[in-house]
Amino acid sequence: MNACIVAIGTELLTPFRVDTNSLVITERLNSIGCSVTAKTVVGDDVEALGRLLAGAIGSVDVIVCTGGLGPTEDDVTREAVARALNLPLDVDQAIEERIRARFTARGLRMASINRRQALVPRGAEVLENPNGTAPGLWLEHGQTVLVLLPGPPREMTPMLEAVIRDRLSSRAARTALFRRVIKVTGRPESDVDERTQPIYARWRSQPVPVHTTILASLGQIELHLTAEASSRAEADRALDPAVAELHEALGLSVVSVDGRTIEAVVGDLLRAARRTIAIAESCTGGLLTSRLTDVPGSSSYVDRAAVCYSNQSKVQWLAVPEALIAAHGAVSEPVARAMAEGVRASARASVGVGVTGIAGPDGGTPDKPVGTVAIAVATETGSRTHTFRFLGGREHVKDQAATTALNMVRLMLLRG
Amino acid sequence: MNACIVAIGTELLTPFRVDTNSLVITERLNSIGCSVTAKTVVGDDVEALGRLLAGAIGSVDVIVCTGGLGPTEDDVTREAVARALNLPLDVDQAIEERIRARFTARGLRMASINRRQALVPRGAEVLENPNGTAPGLWLEHGQTVLVLLPGPPREMTPMLEAVIRDRLSSRAARTALFRRVIKVTGRPESDVDERTQPIYARWRSQPVPVHTTILASLGQIELHLTAEASSRAEADRALDPAVAELHEALGLSVVSVDGRTIEAVVGDLLRAARRTIAIAESCTGGLLTSRLTDVPGSSSYVDRAAVCYSNQSKVQWLAVPEALIAAHGAVSEPVARAMAEGVRASARASVGVGVTGIAGPDGGTPDKPVGTVAIAVATETGSRTHTFRFLGGREHVKDQAATTALNMVRLMLLRG
Repeated sequence: MNACIVAIGTELLTPFRVDTNSLVITERLNSIGCSVTAKTVVGDDVEALGRLLAGAIGSVDVIVCTGGLGPTEDDVTREAVARALNLPLDVDQAIEERIRARFTARGLRMASINRRQALVPRGAEVLENPNGTAPGLWLEHGQTVLVLLPGPPREMTPMLEAVIRDRLSSRAARTALFRRVIKVTGRPESDVDERTQPIYARWRSQPVPVHTTILASLGQIELHLTAEASSRAEADRALDPAVAELHEALGLSVVSVDGRTIEAVVGDLLRAARRTIAIAESCTGGLLTSRLTDVPGSSSYVDRAAVCYSNQSKVQWLAVPEALIAAHGAVSEPVARAMAEGVRASARASVGVGVTGIAGPDGGTPDKPVGTVAIAVATETGSRTHTFRFLGGREHVKDQAATTALNMVRLMLLRG
Repeated sequence: MNACIVAIGTELLTPFRVDTNSLVITERLNSIGCSVTAKTVVGDDVEALGRLLAGAIGSVDVIVCTGGLGPTEDDVTREAVARALNLPLDVDQAIEERIRARFTARGLRMASINRRQALVPRGAEVLENPNGTAPGLWLEHGQTVLVLLPGPPREMTPMLEAVIRDRLSSRAARTALFRRVIKVTGRPESDVDERTQPIYARWRSQPVPVHTTILASLGQIELHLTAEASSRAEADRALDPAVAELHEALGLSVVSVDGRTIEAVVGDLLRAARRTIAIAESCTGGLLTSRLTDVPGSSSYVDRAAVCYSNQSKVQWLAVPEALIAAHGAVSEPVARAMAEGVRASARASVGVGVTGIAGPDGGTPDKPVGTVAIAVATETGSRTHTFRFLGGREHVKDQAATTALNMVRLMLLRG
C-alpha cells in the first residue's frame, strides 16, 4: 500500500512555515506498512488543488490531505475535491448542529461562515473531530482512498489515529515497519555515533535487518531503530537484542528506550520512590518546572518552584544568605546549592534543584560568559553541584540548562 | 513570475526529516517577486520524478529541484529530466575533468561512479558548485526554466544565490513581495475573519493589491498581509493603510503589527512604564514565567515567580489564607486574586498575576471540568479576575492559559 500526503495552506508556501503534519502522518502510515511516495504543499487555491488531486487519484492507494477545512473563504479543500471528482456538495445537517452545539457550550454564537464546514462532497463519510469544529472526510474513488483532515495538529492527530485504527489498517499489507527510539542525554553526538556505529553495521545483514538513524538536537540525541516484519513478535526478535546492545554501550546516558521524555522518566523515578521535588530556578525562568509539569500526574510529586530573578526573592523565599550572594555572585555553585537546599527545606521535599546562570544575550563577563550555568541537586543524603558552559542563544541556553538539570536529578535518583 | 520547488530524496519521505531547503529558496524567490505555488518532495525514483517534472513544465515559470545530483545509483535527477524532456544525456568532459581535479587536489582518486555526475541532458547549461562535486544544471524548455541544485544546504545556498543574481533576477518582474504580520489574541478565528473579511476584499483591486492570509493556533491568530511592489516605499503605501484599518477593526485585540510576540509586547509595556511583575502560577506550571523570560532583558522587569502546586506553598509564599482555599477550592477566583495580590506584595512589584486551574487529564469535576482556569491580575489600582474554559489536552490548556494571562496583563497595562 502506498500513499501521498498533501498539505494545504498558502502560509505553508512562505519562508516561515514547514509542514510538520506529514511527519506524523508518515510515521503512522509506515506503522501499518504503508509507504509514502510523495508529499506536496499547495496554497489555498481551488484550481491548483483540484488539478493535483485529479492527477494523484488512481496513481496511489491513499491520499491524505491536511488543512483547508476551516470556515473561511480561504478554506477550499471541500470545493477542490468536489471539483476534482465531479461531485456535488451537500449540506450535512448533523455537522451543522454539532458545530452550533460546540459554540453554545462555550457561550459563543456560531458565525454564519461556520456553515461552510457542513458541506460534504456527495458520497463522503464524515470523520468526527473531537477537538475542533472542522469535520474530516473519507472518500473512496476507484482504488484510491481520499482522507481529508484539518490542519491544526491537535485536531489532526487524534483523527488520524482513528482513521488508521478503524479504516486503513485492515486494508494494509502483511508487513509493517516497527520502530524503537533510544533517548540519550549527556554525551556529544560524535561520541554517541563513535560508540554505536560499529555495533549496528552488523544488524543490516540479519534475516530481519535493523536500520538505525541518529538524530541530534540540543543536549538530546535519539537513535531510531527500524525493522520491517510481518508481526510485532518477529520485529521484537530483531529489535530487542539491538536495543539491549546499544543500551549497554551507552550505559547511564540512556534516558529511555520506550519513547518517554526525560521529564517523564524523572517523574516515574520520583513516583516509584514516593519522593517529591521542589525547584529553584533563575536563568531557566520557569522552563524547568514547566517541562516537569507537562507530565500528566506531576502534581503528585512536584510540590512547588520558585523562579527567582531578583536577589531579594532568593533571600526571602529560599533563605539564601545575602552574604553568600555578595561573596560569590548570584551565578555560582554555592548559590545554586543554597537555592536547591533552601527550596527543598521550604517545601519539605525529598529533592531540591537550584539553577542559576546567564542566559544572555547580556550579562556575561570574561569570568562568567553568557551560557555559564551552575546547577545543584540536593537530597536527604547530600548534594551535587556542577557548572556548565552552554552554547547558543537565550532560548537554547534555557533549554540545555533545563535538560541538564533534569538529567542530574535522574542520575541522583538512579544512584540512590 | 511563479515557481514550484521539488525536493528529491527518499530520506525526505521518512518521519524524521523535513525539507528546509525550500524555505531558503522561497525567501530568495520572493525577494525578486517570484511566488511559490507548490512544493513537492519525491523519493529517488526516476519514474515518479519524471512524471512530476513532465506535469509541472509549462504550468510554471520556474522549477527549482534540489537533490539527486550525487554520484550514486540513488541519484536519478539527471535521468529523470532527460526522460521528462525526451533529451539524450551527454558526457560533459569539462565537468569530468573538474571533478577529477577536485579529488586529485585532496590526494584522492576519483571513483568511477563520479563520472555519472558529468552527464548532462543535451542543451543544459552547467552551474558551478564551489563547495562540492555535484554541478548544478540550468535548462530552458518553452516558457519554463528548470534549475537543478544539489541537496546539501552548504552546496545549494551559494549556487542558488548565483542563479538568482545572474540569471533569474533579470527575468523577474521588477517587483518583490513585502509582508506584514498582525498578531491578534482574545477572539475566535471565525470572529476575526468575519470582522476582517469585508475590509480586505476591497484591497485586492487596488493598484498594488494586498493579499491577506489568516493563521490560527491556540488562542493566537496571525493575519499575514502581502503586497507585490517595485519598492518598499510603494509597498508601504499599500500596506500601511491596510494594517491601520485592520488594527482599527480589531481594536485592543491586536497584540502587535511588527512581529513582536505577546510576551515581548508585555515586556515593552512594563519597561516603558518602569513597572515590574511577579507571577504566581499553578496549572501553567512555570510556562507563563518561562515565556515572559524568553524575552532578552526580561530580568529588568520580572522580579520573581512562584509555581505553587501544593496548598502549603500558596499559604507560605503567597500568604493565601487557608480558609479561603477551604471555602472556595484552590481553583477559584478568590484564590487566583489572593495569589496575584500575595505575590505582588511579596515582590513589591507593580503587577501581580495569579493563575490557578485544572490542566488535566485528571482532577476535573462536574462543576470545574478539565480546562477550567481562574486568572487574576492585580495592580496598584485594583484587580481583575476571570474564569476561562479552555479545550484540549494538558499542554494546550497550559499554553492557552499562559497566553490569556499575558493578554490580561497587556490589557491592564494599556488601560492604565
